Amino acid sequence: MKIDILSLFPEMFNGVFQSSILKKAHESGAFHYNYVNFREYTDNKHNKVDDYPYGGGAGMVLKPQPIFDAVEAIEKNTSQKPRIILMCPQGETYSQKKAEELAKEEHLIFICGHYEGYDERIRTELVTDEISIGDYVLTGGELGAMVVIDSVVRLLPDVLGNEDSAVQDSFSTGLLEHPHYTRPADFRGLKVPEVLLSGNHAHIEEWRRKEALKRTYDRRQDLLQHLQLTEKEKKWIKEWETSQENS
Amino acid sequence: MKIDILSLFPEMFNGVFQSSILKKAHESGAFHYNYVNFREYTDNKHNKVDDYPYGGGAGMVLKPQPIFDAVEAIEKNTSQKPRIILMCPQGETYSQKKAEELAKEEHLIFICGHYEGYDERIRTELVTDEISIGDYVLTGGELGAMVVIDSVVRLLPDVLGNEDSAVQDSFSTGLLEHPHYTRPADFRGLKVPEVLLSGNHAHIEEWRRKEALKRTYDRRQDLLQHLQLTEKEKKWIKEWETSQENS
Repeated sequence: MKIDILSLFPEMFNGVFQSSILKKAHESGAFHYNYVNFREYTDNKHNKVDDYPYGGGAGMVLKPQPIFDAVEAIEKNTSQKPRIILMCPQGETYSQKKAEELAKEEHLIFICGHYEGYDERIRTELVTDEISIGDYVLTGGELGAMVVIDSVVRLLPDVLGNEDSAVQDSFSTGLLEHPHYTRPADFRGLKVPEVLLSGNHAHIEEWRRKEALKRTYDRRQDLLQHLQLTEKEKKWIKEWETSQENS
Repeated sequence: MKIDILSLFPEMFNGVFQSSILKKAHESGAFHYNYVNFREYTDNKHNKVDDYPYGGGAGMVLKPQPIFDAVEAIEKNTSQKPRIILMCPQGETYSQKKAEELAKEEHLIFICGHYEGYDERIRTELVTDEISIGDYVLTGGELGAMVVIDSVVRLLPDVLGNEDSAVQDSFSTGLLEHPHYTRPADFRGLKVPEVLLSGNHAHIEEWRRKEALKRTYDRRQDLLQHLQLTEKEKKWIKEWETSQENS
């Protein structure tokens, strides 16, 4: 996968790209990245990338010209049409499903603004996707791009060591993960549930499924709407509902 | 604000903390950060921070001892009770409201796991908050911690240059932002809306409110539920509903 990143602060990415999984994925050739400082594409004397908003108001707005020209310079050297992704709070809320979709692409271009608005013509005429990583305000699009890249690259073939890891994660099953325990069995008087020490795999599987369902029920009922539950699982939920009503 | 970060990959944070707003905020003393590699707190010979899960299965689990000890070593040197935040997919979905809440704190501790589960006793006995930045899987908690820190630090007093900036952002008004335009008024035949060039501030304000509402209506109807709308705004929405039904 080829990734181009339009940013005025490319140095922000270094620590993340040079550590851990992303470092290994880059070294193995699973993905290549390239920074494009779109200030180099300005056609004005002072290399200005932003300007005052029409209609007045606080804040500056990123000009269309440098970003259009930078993207078109990248596209000149590619045969396939890339996905051109604008990181912005107005975008589609990012999800694991979107990560899986992007992981199938050959070439992604990320446009990262920094505490400024984007000229609307970038949004309507240039980009293929607008992504928001969540309902909070960041100082720029760079962290959002890192989040998307991290979540996508880990899904690429041969990036994660254990082939199971990517499949069994949270959100892939539609439920929050069940509790995990490791040694010691007794830590400061806090004990591991008996069932996990029992060696009975059927009981362990059922306990894990029930705990995952309970945690999702307690914390994220919105996730349950999309799940197909067994009769037994529906009965568990009924019991939790009843015990809540009685408390 | 004081921020301690428990991570096995502290170098991931460097690029982000040494750029732009976070760099300035750190230099001005608005916040201090400190990395704690909890591997240094292991009490076993091989400095192992993780172990196999009780009950079997793929993946490793972070042991409770090094993380408990690392957090307690930090707490020994603080008078006020810190917020102890676990970055994990099972946590509360992060929001601007949570950012505003955390921005009032004196001391935050972040616990970042890395492609491993947390022993459940960390969750139930040690932490005060569990945060997820969104419904997608990342290789570790570090990017999530950076996202939370960025969104919190920019809210601290005197961090953003223009005092208006933090107030007028997306999510603060409850609506997605209206479109922005800057020069040129005609870019490759794509023109700026007339009203923004009119100089009529009342018209401009109304256009912006209507566009922000329209964008939110089109993309994020879930955000509209919490808003108090004027009669005029309700009428606009009725019109959009009608035009959708007829199309």
